Amino acid sequence: MRIIKVTVTPIAIPDVPLANLKGVHQSVFLRSVIELETDTGLVGLGETYGARRTLEGLQKVAAALEGLDPYDLHDLRRRIETALPDGGGINAPTALTDHKLVDVVYSAYEIPCLDLRGKEVGRPLHDLLGGAVRKTIPFGGYLFYKFAKQDLSFGPDIMGEVMTPDVLVEQARTFHAEYGFQSWKLKGGVLEPELEIETMLKLREAFPGHGLRIDPMGAWTVPTALKVVRRLEGVLEYLEDPCKGMEGMAELSAQIDMPLATNLVVVEFEQVIEAARKDAVQIILSDHHYWRGATGAIHLGEICRAAGMGVSMHSNSHLGISLAAMCHVAAATPNLTYACDTHYPWTTKEIVKGGRPVFRDGAVQVPEGPGLGVELDREALAELHALYNQAMVADRNDTDEMLKYRPDFVRKVPRW
Amino acid sequence: MRIIKVTVTPIAIPDVPLANLKGVHQSVFLRSVIELETDTGLVGLGETYGARRTLEGLQKVAAALEGLDPYDLHDLRRRIETALPDGGGINAPTALTDHKLVDVVYSAYEIPCLDLRGKEVGRPLHDLLGGAVRKTIPFGGYLFYKFAKQDLSFGPDIMGEVMTPDVLVEQARTFHAEYGFQSWKLKGGVLEPELEIETMLKLREAFPGHGLRIDPMGAWTVPTALKVVRRLEGVLEYLEDPCKGMEGMAELSAQIDMPLATNLVVVEFEQVIEAARKDAVQIILSDHHYWRGATGAIHLGEICRAAGMGVSMHSNSHLGISLAAMCHVAAATPNLTYACDTHYPWTTKEIVKGGRPVFRDGAVQVPEGPGLGVELDREALAELHALYNQAMVADRNDTDEMLKYRPDFVRKVPRW
Ligand SMILES: [Mg+2]
Ligand SMILES: [Mg+2]
Repeated sequence: MRIIKVTVTPIAIPDVPLANLKGVHQSVFLRSVIELETDTGLVGLGETYGARRTLEGLQKVAAALEGLDPYDLHDLRRRIETALPDGGGINAPTALTDHKLVDVVYSAYEIPCLDLRGKEVGRPLHDLLGGAVRKTIPFGGYLFYKFAKQDLSFGPDIMGEVMTPDVLVEQARTFHAEYGFQSWKLKGGVLEPELEIETMLKLREAFPGHGLRIDPMGAWTVPTALKVVRRLEGVLEYLEDPCKGMEGMAELSAQIDMPLATNLVVVEFEQVIEAARKDAVQIILSDHHYWRGATGAIHLGEICRAAGMGVSMHSNSHLGISLAAMCHVAAATPNLTYACDTHYPWTTKEIVKGGRPVFRDGAVQVPEGPGLGVELDREALAELHALYNQAMVADRNDTDEMLKYRPDFVRKVPRW
Repeated sequence: MRIIKVTVTPIAIPDVPLANLKGVHQSVFLRSVIELETDTGLVGLGETYGARRTLEGLQKVAAALEGLDPYDLHDLRRRIETALPDGGGINAPTALTDHKLVDVVYSAYEIPCLDLRGKEVGRPLHDLLGGAVRKTIPFGGYLFYKFAKQDLSFGPDIMGEVMTPDVLVEQARTFHAEYGFQSWKLKGGVLEPELEIETMLKLREAFPGHGLRIDPMGAWTVPTALKVVRRLEGVLEYLEDPCKGMEGMAELSAQIDMPLATNLVVVEFEQVIEAARKDAVQIILSDHHYWRGATGAIHLGEICRAAGMGVSMHSNSHLGISLAAMCHVAAATPNLTYACDTHYPWTTKEIVKGGRPVFRDGAVQVPEGPGLGVELDREALAELHALYNQAMVADRNDTDEMLKYRPDFVRKVPRW
């Protein structure tokens, strides 16, 4: 089985103005859809980031994949490293899509390789990762403060403006009614800490017994984070990236019992060891889109187990190919014991056949078909590729977008 | 594909009196040969330790494997943990075969599961581990001080008594002529350190440019080890287990530049992290027989890479099924950059069809057939199983055996 054709299709999907520390989501989010075709007539699917640098990386590598054996992941890595000689770089202070390019591109192509292997042998992808310890994957509801959408040319708004604790709780209720989530994550770092604390306390009241988390993306100084921790003791299952950098997290961690999670200060395997040495975090967010694919995410689980750390799962805005891969990884990672993050409820489109999957009590069933277990809906793909060409957005820039809503916005980390 | 039959065959293989810190090899060494038969008519092979506790563990678990899907390694693990409720235990001060029973039994059954998967899909085992970064696996010549064999009832001696530096160098020359090894490991902790230093210096003279190692199995106090290091600076590529325990290794490591390797103080994934925190060792010896099989050995490689540690490969006395598995693991572990250990030249029998593999310049070609790429020679297996019944040796006890050669022998760690 050898790769004979590589297709990378950039797509744009309508988005809504979800706020974060850096700014706010643009009117579309970008993804790349990958198809690897073999000389045996199979097609392997993948989905990853769509911003310019990733897309260019994917395209540069595409030509170099002809003749690749989908089993030979070491060869895949070598080909990518050769095609992207300057593609490394650790933990640059920009979005994940802008750094770790080799890992991101490797991850993007590794999934379709596994999809092909699964299809060849008639096995779901999780079987290639050691088997499923769970077939029902719990996801958390991802809550955002947001603006009412101004520019509706690429798609409608969802739920209007959400800028107070009470309206945020309404957002959660709406999602709960539709998806049945049993745990919740708030994208924090947007309002003053006092208001975000109030939001979490009101969520606790509204959903007793549900898991609760907040992720201010490093918005808080160590003293501010300490104050938040004191107020939310016993309310949060973990606190994600309260402070900037490994040192800030370690300084906070030394003073508290609440577990700290991260997808910002630990994004390389080497940093897991560093974090263990410094006891900077207790939970690492896995993500097959940059942790070297599904096999890399499984390695991450093993390293976390060895280091006595927990594992949760990170999300970016995504569609159903990514969702399927997330489910397979979660199924095969025994110590991934937290509900996974997902932006999925904020998405209205789908590119896999059969449309949007069912969430029951916040959980999705792992696809049982061969490989990823999803098929590409070519009509939907064409529609979103047309939107990509129409939207003329090639990069993600939440900060510039924010200036449309708040002209005086200044990006600042930490902010409080 | 489901397991319908499990066969565990204990065998005994003629051995020769190789000396180590604990004593000397018995007249036979023991192995267990495992066959997993599926409802699709395939048979997966494995080979592991044969001493009583492992054999009993394998047999207890065998009945529980009916219906197992060879892809579901998590289910394999669960079944073993259920069948061996008291089978855990970390780093007991006995031989590897006596502790980590769950890991050992899991490892023993994981390899035949991978063999089955490879056979089903027509792929060599290393392809299931991410592919081969090398197809030619370098092994090191494993040198032993030894006695002339007294009891020849189960097989002849090899090379008579070897108890001086000069005769040890002759041993290496003999192996070099037959196998072409390009690096060498001496099992130390047998003679006084001064004589073992002399041996290493004479090996250096005899084989300029070859990699050299010595493994006294914790025989030396930290001050003794320090003296040895000073004398062998620039001579050894690494020093294996000079001192007893993680703390002893860390104390020595802090005072020297020479890399320290271990298969004694780091035998659990958790201990890799501990060793990293303490900078106790710089190289971990991998071994699919107890590091949770081939997939576990691959995880170990990833953890070592993350921790900035090197990887080498440990060996016990073994035959060709183990050798094949070692080759596949070595092929798929990028950072396994040292020649692997092997006791193979001390073995005269073989149980795989085609007989003993060819070593060229000390290296073996990774089998390219499906799965492990080896087939069982049933006649040879029957012969060695008969020897097992005849020899009436059910456990390894190097110390008792030593008393036959040196009635005043007292086991002592550290000795010098
Ligand atoms: Mg985050
Ligand atoms: Mg050793």
